[in-house]
Amino acid sequence: MQVQTLKGFRDYLPADMAPRQRMIRSIEAVFERHGFAPLQTPALEYAETLTGKYGDEGDKLLYRFTDHGERQVALRYDLTVPLARVVAQHRGALQIPFRRYQVAPVWRADKPQRGRYREFVQCDADICGADSAVADAEVLVAGLAVLRELGVAAAQLHLNHREVLFGVLRLHGVDAAGAQLACIRAIDKLDKMPPAAVQAEIEAQAGLDAGGAAAVVQAFTAGTTVADWSARAAVAGDAAFVAALDRIQVVLDLCNAAGHGGAIVFDAAIARGLDYYTGIIYETRLTDAKVAGMGAVMSGGRYDNLIGLFAGSAVPAVGISVGLDRLFAALQELELVGGNEAAVPVYATVMAPELAAPTLRLVGELRRAGLRVEMELGGGKLGKQFERASKRGARAVLVIGSDEVAAGTVVVKDLRAGSQATVAQADAASYLRDLGIT
Amino acid sequence: MQVQTLKGFRDYLPADMAPRQRMIRSIEAVFERHGFAPLQTPALEYAETLTGKYGDEGDKLLYRFTDHGERQVALRYDLTVPLARVVAQHRGALQIPFRRYQVAPVWRADKPQRGRYREFVQCDADICGADSAVADAEVLVAGLAVLRELGVAAAQLHLNHREVLFGVLRLHGVDAAGAQLACIRAIDKLDKMPPAAVQAEIEAQAGLDAGGAAAVVQAFTAGTTVADWSARAAVAGDAAFVAALDRIQVVLDLCNAAGHGGAIVFDAAIARGLDYYTGIIYETRLTDAKVAGMGAVMSGGRYDNLIGLFAGSAVPAVGISVGLDRLFAALQELELVGGNEAAVPVYATVMAPELAAPTLRLVGELRRAGLRVEMELGGGKLGKQFERASKRGARAVLVIGSDEVAAGTVVVKDLRAGSQATVAQADAASYLRDLGIT
Repeated sequence: MQVQTLKGFRDYLPADMAPRQRMIRSIEAVFERHGFAPLQTPALEYAETLTGKYGDEGDKLLYRFTDHGERQVALRYDLTVPLARVVAQHRGALQIPFRRYQVAPVWRADKPQRGRYREFVQCDADICGADSAVADAEVLVAGLAVLRELGVAAAQLHLNHREVLFGVLRLHGVDAAGAQLACIRAIDKLDKMPPAAVQAEIEAQAGLDAGGAAAVVQAFTAGTTVADWSARAAVAGDAAFVAALDRIQVVLDLCNAAGHGGAIVFDAAIARGLDYYTGIIYETRLTDAKVAGMGAVMSGGRYDNLIGLFAGSAVPAVGISVGLDRLFAALQELELVGGNEAAVPVYATVMAPELAAPTLRLVGELRRAGLRVEMELGGGKLGKQFERASKRGARAVLVIGSDEVAAGTVVVKDLRAGSQATVAQADAASYLRDLGIT
Repeated sequence: MQVQTLKGFRDYLPADMAPRQRMIRSIEAVFERHGFAPLQTPALEYAETLTGKYGDEGDKLLYRFTDHGERQVALRYDLTVPLARVVAQHRGALQIPFRRYQVAPVWRADKPQRGRYREFVQCDADICGADSAVADAEVLVAGLAVLRELGVAAAQLHLNHREVLFGVLRLHGVDAAGAQLACIRAIDKLDKMPPAAVQAEIEAQAGLDAGGAAAVVQAFTAGTTVADWSARAAVAGDAAFVAALDRIQVVLDLCNAAGHGGAIVFDAAIARGLDYYTGIIYETRLTDAKVAGMGAVMSGGRYDNLIGLFAGSAVPAVGISVGLDRLFAALQELELVGGNEAAVPVYATVMAPELAAPTLRLVGELRRAGLRVEMELGGGKLGKQFERASKRGARAVLVIGSDEVAAGTVVVKDLRAGSQATVAQADAASYLRDLGIT
C-alpha cells in the first residue's frame, strides 16, 4: 500500500495550515475592501479551453486526460484563462466592469524544486471590461495593500509595459519580430543570469552583433527614467512607445496618490513570460536581504485580447496574482508568521467517566460563547491529561470534579501563571476572557 | 472554441459565491471552537491510495489517469481516505488524538442530477486516535453546532450503530453474512422506497420468506427504543448488540448534556453505504417541510479499521461530513442566506480624469480604515456612474470635484435615504460608519 504524497505535492499539517489559512483570509479581506467579489470555477475544464494559451511549454505542463464520457479534460493551469471563459460564458449575468478575486489551487506538471510544487495556490484579483489607467492602478493598489496587510514592508513592485520593451528595441534598430522576441526572452533572464550571458544569448538567438547586443543590455539595465525614455521616443516619433510611457506615468501617479508610491518603480527590463499580456506588466520582489533571492511574489499585467478568444469580441482586462506559497515561505523566513496558531487555548479534562457529561455541558456553553475549547477524549490520570493539554498549547485547563458539579463551579488552572481559581460555571467564559483568551 | 463548463461542473459567480464563502467561514469557525485544526491534502493521490476503499461502485466513479511520470493517479473522492493516509504518513508529527477539519472539493464521475455535481465541496471534522464515546459525541456536537450557527433550527440527526443493524437481524434469525448485507442494503433504501418494495427486495436478495422479510422491515421501522432493544438483546444474550446499544445511549446522553439533545434521535434503520464504518453511523435530515425531501445534509460515523490499512496498526477514528452544496441549497430555500452579499457598500465616482488621483487617495484611506469601496473605472457622465453604483448595490456614493479637492472635503450621497452631505475627508470613514456601513 502506497502511503505517500505524489512527487511535487504536499500535505499542509495544522502547524503550517493554520497560519497559511489566516494569510488567505487576510488576502481575501483586502481584495474585498478593494471591491473585488469572490468567484469559484471548476478544477477541471475542457482541455481545449486551456491549450494554446500558455505557450508550447505551458501546454506540456497541463495535466490532461480523457474522462468517463470520452471528453478531453485538463486540470486548470492558472486562474486567468478560466476567468476569461467565465466572462465569455456568463457575460449577461455579470456586472461589467467585473471585479473578481479567486483563491484556488492550480496544477502544473513542472519539475519539482525547492519551493516549487505541482499543486500550488494562486490568489488572483482581476478587473474585466475596463481599459483605463485607473483599472491598472486599482489592481496594483490591491496587491500592494495585500503586502502591507501581511506586514511585508520591504517589497518593490517593478512596473513595465509590453510596448516599452518593443519601443526600446526599435530605438536600437531591432525591428524584426523574431529578433525582438528573442531579445525579450533574453532580457527576461536578467534577474537570474549575469548581463554578459544575456548579451551572449541575444547575439546567438537574435542575431545581433556584439556591439548591438551590448547596447540593448545596457539600455534595459541603465535605469533610464520614464521621462528620459519619453523624450527619446518623442524624438524618434514612436507614438506607441510614447503612449506606453504615458500610461506608466499615469499609473505611477495614481498608485502614489493611493499611498503606495514608495513601493513601486518603473523597470524597463520586466518582460514576463506569458504570451497573452498586451499592456502593463509587473513583478513584485521582496527587498529584505533574507529573502531577496526568492523571485517574484506577486505579478501580472494587462491582457486585452485573451477574453476575446472566448467571447468573440474583445473585453479588456488587467489582473494581479499573489504567489501564496512563495509569499508564505517568505513570511516564515521573516518571522512574520509564527506561534502555534493551531493551538487550542482551553482544554477540558475529564476526571472520571461519569463526569464527562457535566464537563461537556460547560464546554458547550464556552464554545457557544465563542471560545475555542478542546475536550479530553481518553480520560485516565489527570497528570497525563495536563501533559496533553500542554502539548496542545493550551493556556487554561478546566477541571470539574463531583464537588464542582454539585457547586456549579469549575477549577481553572492558568498554565502560564501556574495559578488556579475556582469560579462559577456561569462566569467561566468571562473569567477566561479576562485571562486574555479570545 | 469550447466556451462552457464540463457536464456536472459549475461556476459559482459572486452572487452565489459570496454567501457560500461566508457559510464555509462559519463552518470553519465552529469546527475551530470545537478544537479542530485545519489540514489540507493534495487534490491528486496515487490511485492505489484510493481504490478499494469505496466499494466497486465508488472505484468506478474515481477520476483516474496516468500522469507525466507514468504514475497511476486519481482525484480525491472524499476527505476521509486522504486523512487516513496523512495519519499513517505523518503520525510522528501529529498530536494524537488528532482533531482536524478540512474543507475542500472532491470529484466523482457520477451521473449529474439536480443538486448533484461531479465536483462538490465537503466540510469534514474527524478525530483520529480516540475510541471513546466522548469522541463520538464530540463530532456530533460539532456538526450540530454547525447547523445551529447557520440558523438551521429544524434538523434531526438520526443516530445508529453498525452492530445494531446486525443485532436486529440476528434477533430475527438472519445469521448468514450475505443475507445480512443484502438486508442492510435494502433497509438503507427505506427513506427512498415504500416499505413493501424494501420487503420485496429482502425476499429477492436475502432469500427470506414473506413473513420473515415483513418482520425485518417492521423491526427497523417500528421506532423501538434503545431501552426496549437492550432488554431484548440481553434476553438473547447478544453481547455485541448490547454493547452497541449502550454506546448509543452514552453518546445520546453526552449530546444531551452539551445542549443538543433535541436535535438527535436513535434510528435503527440508518445503514450508510460506505464499507469502512465500524461503530456509530448517522445521517442528518432537515425537517422543515420546504426542504424535507432533500436527503442527508450531514453524515458520518466511526471507522476504526480504515487508518490501519495504511498505518499497519489500528487507529480508531470517527468523523462528520457536512454536505456543503446541499446545505447551501437548503439555506437558500429557507431564505437563511440572501441579500446581495457580493455588493460593495461604497462607490467612488470620478468626475474628471484629473480627479482620479485625489479620489483614489481618499478611497485608499477609507479602505485602510476597513471599508469596502469600489472605484469608478470608466469615468464619463455622473448619471451613468450613479447607475453603476446602484447596480453594484452601493449604499453610499462619493463625489469629489475640484472644489472638494481644494477644501479637503467629499460629497457623500446616501442612496437609500436620498440625502447628501459634504464632509471633511478626514471624517469620511466615521461618517460612513455612522450611516451603518461596516
